[in-house]
Amino acid sequence: MADRSQWIPLTAAVRPFSVGLDLGGTNIKAGLVDDEGRTLAYHTEPTEVARGPEDVAARLGGCVATLAALAGIEPGEIATVGLGTPGPQDLASGVIHDAGNLPGFENFPIRDRVSAHCDHAVTFANDATAAAYGEYWIGSGRDLASMVFWTLGTGIGGGVVIDGVCLEGHHSHATECGHIIVDTSPEARLCPCGQRGHLEAYASATALVKSARGAVHAGLGTRLATVAAAGEPITPIVIAREAKAGDETAMELILEAAGWLGIGTVNLMHIIDPEGVVLGGAMTFGREADPIGRAFIERVRQEVRDRAFPLLAEQTTIRYATLGGDAGYIGAAGLARAAGRGG
Amino acid sequence: MADRSQWIPLTAAVRPFSVGLDLGGTNIKAGLVDDEGRTLAYHTEPTEVARGPEDVAARLGGCVATLAALAGIEPGEIATVGLGTPGPQDLASGVIHDAGNLPGFENFPIRDRVSAHCDHAVTFANDATAAAYGEYWIGSGRDLASMVFWTLGTGIGGGVVIDGVCLEGHHSHATECGHIIVDTSPEARLCPCGQRGHLEAYASATALVKSARGAVHAGLGTRLATVAAAGEPITPIVIAREAKAGDETAMELILEAAGWLGIGTVNLMHIIDPEGVVLGGAMTFGREADPIGRAFIERVRQEVRDRAFPLLAEQTTIRYATLGGDAGYIGAAGLARAAGRGG
Repeated sequence: MADRSQWIPLTAAVRPFSVGLDLGGTNIKAGLVDDEGRTLAYHTEPTEVARGPEDVAARLGGCVATLAALAGIEPGEIATVGLGTPGPQDLASGVIHDAGNLPGFENFPIRDRVSAHCDHAVTFANDATAAAYGEYWIGSGRDLASMVFWTLGTGIGGGVVIDGVCLEGHHSHATECGHIIVDTSPEARLCPCGQRGHLEAYASATALVKSARGAVHAGLGTRLATVAAAGEPITPIVIAREAKAGDETAMELILEAAGWLGIGTVNLMHIIDPEGVVLGGAMTFGREADPIGRAFIERVRQEVRDRAFPLLAEQTTIRYATLGGDAGYIGAAGLARAAGRGG
Repeated sequence: MADRSQWIPLTAAVRPFSVGLDLGGTNIKAGLVDDEGRTLAYHTEPTEVARGPEDVAARLGGCVATLAALAGIEPGEIATVGLGTPGPQDLASGVIHDAGNLPGFENFPIRDRVSAHCDHAVTFANDATAAAYGEYWIGSGRDLASMVFWTLGTGIGGGVVIDGVCLEGHHSHATECGHIIVDTSPEARLCPCGQRGHLEAYASATALVKSARGAVHAGLGTRLATVAAAGEPITPIVIAREAKAGDETAMELILEAAGWLGIGTVNLMHIIDPEGVVLGGAMTFGREADPIGRAFIERVRQEVRDRAFPLLAEQTTIRYATLGGDAGYIGAAGLARAAGRGG
């Protein structure tokens, strides 16, 4: 929501207002949203992890006043504040345990430090869960009673919302959907978490790029070899570009990742049985607007038709997310709003 | 609870009272329980599916009066009635869709027909979910805030209870845990549901017996071959008996099934993250009291240690159920009791 023209004017906004804070390894995103989830003001800045957790917490807390100023309201007019951070964390105590892409944040009480810096109680959530809630509240899942959400990017995360309630887990580890076991063979791939056969090792951007490099090294006749020879980094965007240009290997790699994602989706459907499944995150190939995005989601749907109970395959909608990178702060704000109403 | 000496006397019972009905392919089990889940009266009779769904519904409804008479109370003193039936069913409308072991019950409105026959509103549940709730309420999971439950038998079912609420699913198909995909290889085993690689094809009693027969046919030096040659049917009980007598093949088959169950358990832990996992159903090998039961659950725990997030493997308790065949009616009664209190 970097484009101010998309912000709604204060006169059109419905109170109470909430702030959502989305802490990522690269950027902080912060938004002020109204009671219908519409953005009144947005602010982003680099996380600069190296400045340390207390500095980051101070700047996160400072976003509340920044957003109020941008929207032309007093900070006191903000009813609730929500914060989403990468896991694993302990939701009850508001502590980040061991965040891979936030070095130095181990066991840092982020919720209470942000709260101290903005003088608001802070509702704390996993970032993928916050994004799931954002899509559920006003995005792709706004017509769904229950929803499974995938965040497809460098890693794979997930969130589950059922009748407005997010699945959090007893140890704050629910919906670690990238770590569903999809390959139990002895030659199963190694997941960044250290275990074997997890979905993240098959369907994440990292896994896709690794497979593409493997294809290049194997000497398969692929345009990706030309890309690599020219010194251009192989990324999911490049792989999709070459697939669109007719490279069969690139297309196969994308569809293979989609197939694994479909297997993970079947497992979620047989456990959660949501009304719908929403695919979000950076690795969504231009979504339905792009032929590669269409082929990707169609392959997920095909895998579901091939492997799920027919009734579920028929009746469970599978679609892309619509809020893009805004889902996290909107969802964090929405969770704070819901908590403010007593859940 | 066929042993009357285990029933609590009316004078010790806490009101309100609930009836739980558990419809199985072979037997109907019905119990009258007090507000603490203790059984005041119990009745069982053969289902006799061939008599047709209306006859079965009439006899299920009749259990309410039978139980009242057994306990020495008026039927009007029963506050709520709950019913668990095999799936797939539609919970909202109270209809059995397509029950494999209840031929003739397709699309039968079991909930409303039982209700008509006992003149009570009936709370309707999946049988595995009802059993899960029974264990959660007063059984093995009574100290757990959230719980994943396995029913291990001819097939594999499951149930999930989180803070007293059962996961039902948008299409009444949540926790079809026997149909988690555990083998994605081309040679994956065929599940009775018609799909390949589902857990039920690897860890159910049916799968275990099939593996044992395979070992016999393969000419492995196993005592099970002697059993088969003597015309004795190979059952999980017989396989466990031979394992206990020192047959290595029999033991390996049991541990192999446990390993697959462990993989399914890891997937549930990474999605639901319950406080505990409870193993119930007929195929629990004498539980902790038996060396085979101990080896079986220890193998599940080992697989979890090998494949789950270390924090979850450490902190998630894995244990056997304690209510045995009573879990279903107790849970159905408990769900009715909870619904009567407004959920």
